[in-house]
Amino acid sequence: MEISCIIAQSGGPTAVINSSLLGVIDEAKKMNMSHIYGALNGIDGILNERIINFNNEDEKELNYLKNTPSAALGSVRLHLKDYKTDPATYEKILEVFKKLNIHYFFYIGGNDSMDTCHKVAEYFKESSYDCKVIGIPKTIDNDLIGTDHTPGFGSSVKYVTNVLSEIYLDTHAYKKGRVTVVEIMGRNAGWLTASSILTKVSDTPVDLIYIPEAPFDVNNFLNKVKTIYEQKQKVLVAVSEGIKTKEGEYFLKSHMSNKTDAFGHMQLGGVGQVLCEIVSEKLNLPVRAIELNLPQRAASHIASATDIEEAYNCGQYAMEQAVKGETGKMVIMTRVNNYEIKYELMDIGGIANEVKVVPQEYINEDGDYINDSFIDYALPLIQGDITIPFENGIVRFARMKKEIIKYK
Amino acid sequence: MEISCIIAQSGGPTAVINSSLLGVIDEAKKMNMSHIYGALNGIDGILNERIINFNNEDEKELNYLKNTPSAALGSVRLHLKDYKTDPATYEKILEVFKKLNIHYFFYIGGNDSMDTCHKVAEYFKESSYDCKVIGIPKTIDNDLIGTDHTPGFGSSVKYVTNVLSEIYLDTHAYKKGRVTVVEIMGRNAGWLTASSILTKVSDTPVDLIYIPEAPFDVNNFLNKVKTIYEQKQKVLVAVSEGIKTKEGEYFLKSHMSNKTDAFGHMQLGGVGQVLCEIVSEKLNLPVRAIELNLPQRAASHIASATDIEEAYNCGQYAMEQAVKGETGKMVIMTRVNNYEIKYELMDIGGIANEVKVVPQEYINEDGDYINDSFIDYALPLIQGDITIPFENGIVRFARMKKEIIKYK
Repeated sequence: MEISCIIAQSGGPTAVINSSLLGVIDEAKKMNMSHIYGALNGIDGILNERIINFNNEDEKELNYLKNTPSAALGSVRLHLKDYKTDPATYEKILEVFKKLNIHYFFYIGGNDSMDTCHKVAEYFKESSYDCKVIGIPKTIDNDLIGTDHTPGFGSSVKYVTNVLSEIYLDTHAYKKGRVTVVEIMGRNAGWLTASSILTKVSDTPVDLIYIPEAPFDVNNFLNKVKTIYEQKQKVLVAVSEGIKTKEGEYFLKSHMSNKTDAFGHMQLGGVGQVLCEIVSEKLNLPVRAIELNLPQRAASHIASATDIEEAYNCGQYAMEQAVKGETGKMVIMTRVNNYEIKYELMDIGGIANEVKVVPQEYINEDGDYINDSFIDYALPLIQGDITIPFENGIVRFARMKKEIIKYK
Repeated sequence: MEISCIIAQSGGPTAVINSSLLGVIDEAKKMNMSHIYGALNGIDGILNERIINFNNEDEKELNYLKNTPSAALGSVRLHLKDYKTDPATYEKILEVFKKLNIHYFFYIGGNDSMDTCHKVAEYFKESSYDCKVIGIPKTIDNDLIGTDHTPGFGSSVKYVTNVLSEIYLDTHAYKKGRVTVVEIMGRNAGWLTASSILTKVSDTPVDLIYIPEAPFDVNNFLNKVKTIYEQKQKVLVAVSEGIKTKEGEYFLKSHMSNKTDAFGHMQLGGVGQVLCEIVSEKLNLPVRAIELNLPQRAASHIASATDIEEAYNCGQYAMEQAVKGETGKMVIMTRVNNYEIKYELMDIGGIANEVKVVPQEYINEDGDYINDSFIDYALPLIQGDITIPFENGIVRFARMKKEIIKYK
């Protein structure tokens, strides 16, 4: 009897989402799945029957998935409606799965993807179709509940920490420097920005850290910048794109609404630029805004070995547990004995719509720095030796055929 | 008899300027110099007697200079006036050198620094003070004449190429993507932006490349973007910060002067952002601007082994030749038998005020792409195996005492 599995990826890419993919594939091979399918662009690939077969791919190339950033299968941002509102979508998924004898479905993604997982798993249960559904977490935002951290976060932390250390050295080359504001991803949770505290470990500390979990007050910010600049003739600030006012509004949005008439351009300038404009205007100090941008989620060239391995293990564990009969769950990581990871499952229903934010205990009293205890949390995530495969001086990425399969 | 040497660094930092510094120090030790001095913040450290002694530094720490970005001695942007205009400055330098028995002076820097070197060397000759002066090139801009390329350039090329490859994968994850414009350093020469053609080698090619050497026409740009987007639903553009109109004016400046009244903010938005604004407004396509910013000159974590080694060799060679009696010259690199480097000297007088731009033969007819022949030029510069020293997941930088010496 043919029993096959299918894997898909969704949401914003990370440096290690493909390592999880490889973990599922490798374990599926051990389990002797008839076919190991991949859906292109997440659930969309299932609905539009854009499906590839990993058995057609070269094994050596697949091994490079560990070092290939972004979603090798392509990603999608698609929020599934409820079965009652949109039965056709669910029936289409069922139709495809039946045609291909798919009885295991793995979805690698963040919050929205876990919501999709949950809805699909529920539908299969109600339809009495035997398909195990397991969610595999990924997000650089580290904002999924239930897990100690998410795959993808560690590699972003490693990139951000190293680049901030390098920026520290660069910006300290001149006697009279600037106010440098580095904008870091994180709209609702400040985990990645908080990890800029790790620059203390390399003696290249940032001066100020602002995250969405601590209300941002622009006058306090200006006072701090002024004081530090007077002492050191340079200031290095790490700021989350999603910092909020004490009223809970995004600072960028509140600032934009004040300025929209005068500056119709604001949609393109990030919070780092806006803070630089304010410092320049109010304190008349030289400024530089640096937005770390896409590299912070895609920098395979400096991925964390621990993160790559954990992402892979999450994939393997998902397949292992699905075959044991588990469904409607997400893989979580639990930290034991500083530092080991235990892989477990958690009901996916409760995960989808919650956001795990940085606990207040990690934030200093003034709301502009992170306590050293955060170093104990984040430093293990960027450890481990790794040999990144370079070819011609460029990271060697997986080259897949991705031939779309044909079937009746 | 005491004979000592002094080294200083100047201009914008690079990932390997400290490797050149180490090359000089190591060779000076072989030559049994009495003292190996370093001036803090370039020529300013000599004028203000902020001088350290490398003999006081831990040798193991100094070895980490190979992997430490930015100027370990600090940098300065100071343009020396002529002796006739400002004799006091030159007399001060002479006074300090005499007090410390300094007879060898090495200045690691770009165009302006070579001008300083030249003037100081001429002054010593005229004053009959026996001090050999050698310039050691560095600049990520690769715009110094006489040398095949400059130390610092290769590491920037490696960072830019790898990050662009990763951005390619990230921006190709979705079926319907954006117009992504990546802004790369280079105000007057497009060498670094031109090297984005290396993304072809890793099958992650950028779509369009704009450099200052080819006049930028905004309508041609919009037509190309429109056509490519219609074909692929995504466009990846590499653009030099210094692109110019056919009248030879900076595009950013020409655009700003048109818009200054409406948009008083433009000083902070780079050319990438401006192009995104235009694409959004004229073509109504989704856009993302990415400014690679400081990491492109500071990314030690992915420095080129070839670049580190060449930078080091330039430092060694400078000391070796100075002891042989050479002065008023800059180290140059000549490429022989694809790919070896011969180190030579060149009179520094002609170098200072010229800029080496990208030859037209490397630019395609439409002025929006780079020919494959450039790959032969640039690819060797990012080769070589290297083990970057990490400690706690962060690149291990040199930790120097930098105690300022006291003397009468």
